[in-house]
Amino acid sequence: MKRILTGDRPTGKLHLGHYVGTLANRVKLQNEYDTYIMIANIQGLTDNFNNPSKVRDNIIEVIKDYYAVGLDFNKCKIFIQSEVSAINEIFVYLSNFVSVQKIMHNPTIKTEIAEKGMTESTPLGFFYYPIHQVADILCVKADLVPVGKDQAPMIEDAREIARKFNQTYSVNILPEPEALFGITENLPGTDGNSKMSKSLNNCIYLSDDDETLKKKVNSIYTDPTRVKATDKGHIEGNVAFIYHDIFNTNKDEVKDLKERYVEGKVGDVEVKEKLFIALKTFLDPIRERRKEAEQKQDELFANVLASSKVVSGIANQTLSEMKEVMKIKF
Amino acid sequence: MKRILTGDRPTGKLHLGHYVGTLANRVKLQNEYDTYIMIANIQGLTDNFNNPSKVRDNIIEVIKDYYAVGLDFNKCKIFIQSEVSAINEIFVYLSNFVSVQKIMHNPTIKTEIAEKGMTESTPLGFFYYPIHQVADILCVKADLVPVGKDQAPMIEDAREIARKFNQTYSVNILPEPEALFGITENLPGTDGNSKMSKSLNNCIYLSDDDETLKKKVNSIYTDPTRVKATDKGHIEGNVAFIYHDIFNTNKDEVKDLKERYVEGKVGDVEVKEKLFIALKTFLDPIRERRKEAEQKQDELFANVLASSKVVSGIANQTLSEMKEVMKIKF
Repeated sequence: MKRILTGDRPTGKLHLGHYVGTLANRVKLQNEYDTYIMIANIQGLTDNFNNPSKVRDNIIEVIKDYYAVGLDFNKCKIFIQSEVSAINEIFVYLSNFVSVQKIMHNPTIKTEIAEKGMTESTPLGFFYYPIHQVADILCVKADLVPVGKDQAPMIEDAREIARKFNQTYSVNILPEPEALFGITENLPGTDGNSKMSKSLNNCIYLSDDDETLKKKVNSIYTDPTRVKATDKGHIEGNVAFIYHDIFNTNKDEVKDLKERYVEGKVGDVEVKEKLFIALKTFLDPIRERRKEAEQKQDELFANVLASSKVVSGIANQTLSEMKEVMKIKF
Repeated sequence: MKRILTGDRPTGKLHLGHYVGTLANRVKLQNEYDTYIMIANIQGLTDNFNNPSKVRDNIIEVIKDYYAVGLDFNKCKIFIQSEVSAINEIFVYLSNFVSVQKIMHNPTIKTEIAEKGMTESTPLGFFYYPIHQVADILCVKADLVPVGKDQAPMIEDAREIARKFNQTYSVNILPEPEALFGITENLPGTDGNSKMSKSLNNCIYLSDDDETLKKKVNSIYTDPTRVKATDKGHIEGNVAFIYHDIFNTNKDEVKDLKERYVEGKVGDVEVKEKLFIALKTFLDPIRERRKEAEQKQDELFANVLASSKVVSGIANQTLSEMKEVMKIKF
């Protein structure tokens, strides 16, 4: 069974964007692959080092979200990055096989540095995190990494670094991981922004209660050209209908709403009321399981720590093989 | 007793430049300080990763050189860097407290990158080694670091990183190390270059035999303006006399040679013959002890591995304190 590695930074609760982008896919993948899911708290700290409580608290939130969406803690190895010490050592040795200039040209990190206003002063840890991620992947010798198209350069880095390491020491220790492209579209935020993102404050969280959900649905960006319910409306780029398409299982209802919308025969209020019901129907079982997760929080956390030990063992083995060929085993 | 940390990259045998610059000083310091001496093989690999045997083989050469010059393996903790895993983890966490731009302006690393022809493509591991060195220093909470003036920026980095870490978490875990300036002059190479350096092939090694020593002494750069022995000679910048001043214990002989040299009353041959005797006298007991070290190589290596374990314990303790305040202890 092929091995996959994926994960999240514990810097916030998970939202519908995560669900659509990766969580739903993971729930499927866990049945087909040897699945490793990393809670990336070291990387979470790189831009939150002055707020460690935020990272600490969100570890448990993410664990509950994982349970809530249906990840099976016995099938998957869900682990905490900082509990796998060898990742850092592997990272240091891999750092000899990638240049600073290459990282600087990585489009993802370039954009992120600009977005975070770090152009003048980029913390070293944040700068090299894409290479630290390579160590995450290679330490468990993952065959596949589920990513969006925008993360393809990171997988290319991982492949190149593994290849160079193997070539330099004439061995075949580090397998070159492959990208496993899933759903690549971002879910738009409630404000119409192309991406649902905590920092944009446009998210519907898996853990939102009905009241919060209701408020957020009512605030959803629809068709700015439409002033009153009798105006002909537009479906394209209309977040309410994008959400209907994804989350409303009653396809006839969605079809009917769309037809009436373009003809100016239905108001935003009805569209949103029905969306609220659809999202509530979608979220209810997730929220139910999240309550369950709260009940057995300690048990889940213990499971994660146990998995972290297992992953640590695997990473130590990888490190040991690497040290052997670098002639630093004594 | 205050703690000092110092060390060498195991990328070659040690030479007279090392002796004058640091080894002689260390032999004194070991009686006054709690002395930690690191064999920096991780950093040695950053620009020798494609030649791991070189680094591996030179670890034992450096150990023998240490013994030969009189370092006491029971007084000092002589340890191998790669055996102290926590250094890498500490490095990763410290990386949040220094910027890429700051490293780029570090004069030492700038010069080295240029010298090694790495301007277009700088391996990440080489680029950040000054910060990895900060982790070396802070992991044992060294109070003092014996350095030359050219390494002062590295100590400044260490102080700043320690300070920022402590401030961020409102703790006092990492002491700010201070530079302990020793002899700051470089010993010139046999070719007249201002620095004795393996890469310039101008070194007299502590382990050179008499024949090699004789050849090297005969090749020493003296006074290029002097054609024959009766020409008046110059003492300044004359490597033969610089070595006489440092290594010849017969000060009257040196005075006499200098007087006759400036008057054109002594040839290079005599100056060099006497220098050979002086260096031989200086090196003989060192080479004697080096032979002894060869006899008990296994014992010395075992001592180093045992010290590495002790240092690892100290570094793990430092790491544990850091993780506690970063809220990543579980």
